[in-house]
Amino acid sequence: MAAEDDKDLIEILENQNSIDVAKYMNFVSAPQAGAIATFSGTTRDTFDGKTVLELVYEAYIPMAIRCIKSVCTSARESWNLHSIAVAHRLGTVPVGETSVFIAVSSVHRADALEACRYLIDEIKATVPIWKKEVYSNGEVWKENTEFLERRSELGKKDVAVEIKEHKKELCCGTKVRVNHEGSQD
Amino acid sequence: MAAEDDKDLIEILENQNSIDVAKYMNFVSAPQAGAIATFSGTTRDTFDGKTVLELVYEAYIPMAIRCIKSVCTSARESWNLHSIAVAHRLGTVPVGETSVFIAVSSVHRADALEACRYLIDEIKATVPIWKKEVYSNGEVWKENTEFLERRSELGKKDVAVEIKEHKKELCCGTKVRVNHEGSQD
Repeated sequence: MAAEDDKDLIEILENQNSIDVAKYMNFVSAPQAGAIATFSGTTRDTFDGKTVLELVYEAYIPMAIRCIKSVCTSARESWNLHSIAVAHRLGTVPVGETSVFIAVSSVHRADALEACRYLIDEIKATVPIWKKEVYSNGEVWKENTEFLERRSELGKKDVAVEIKEHKKELCCGTKVRVNHEGSQD
Repeated sequence: MAAEDDKDLIEILENQNSIDVAKYMNFVSAPQAGAIATFSGTTRDTFDGKTVLELVYEAYIPMAIRCIKSVCTSARESWNLHSIAVAHRLGTVPVGETSVFIAVSSVHRADALEACRYLIDEIKATVPIWKKEVYSNGEVWKENTEFLERRSELGKKDVAVEIKEHKKELCCGTKVRVNHEGSQD
């Protein structure tokens, strides 16, 4: 499932195919853009000293796309960007393969580099994509540390104030609250 | 011409071929690295309101490689990195094509992202690669602003002190001094 809004392309990939990095780099490439920054998040072979075999990702896709779009909009408010592409795989991602890929282009390099960092940090912290770590001796569903920290921060605040102060976080904030009462705790 | 030192790959490309981004991303990819950050510097179609047709790069290749290696060593001293790849084209680079590509991998993403930013900033500021901008109505050899600024900083200091204080910058600092008396001024 994909969302393309002006110069932003967001794709949540449900099949088992690897992410086509060249496709997203070509998407953000343009004659007027002098810089492309990218980030690839890949499954690594160990976590906390345990041998990881693969990661498995799940998400409610329309909500994940809406949250990623919100992060892209927020990035455009802070930096002068030409195009953004974000791709996230769902399902099984074996060791060494990419689960999330971000490409950002801009006229000058500082914008692309800073926005790329912001995008991956915010996507990790706010987009509800669940991760199962499959070890050689078991498996566990888990949220990443940043997501838990952001949820913890939100939980300490009055929600009405939060919505007023940070309109951009409404989509993900709401999802966080729903999930807070759900099975992931 | 290429230099491969442990986990760093540096290539100065003299032919007219485009940079093979996938090759460098594969080079830095590893099961133990969870993050890859990249930067592509591309020829854009305008500079200061003038229409750019192409850029032309020249370098004394052994010196350029030595300086880039020095920047890589310096990055490894500041961040926990798995692999670094740097490719720079020489000769003509038409609008929309990549002249410099950097890929960095690390276990955790902050290291790769921060080092990637550092690498491109330092390479632009310290590596003696000369650039000719070919406009629709003329052409000009120029150094980038960062290189001029760094040279200006070096020029204000006593060189002996400089060498003692910043051993890492010796390679590039020397080149700067040689060039200071050359035709580029």
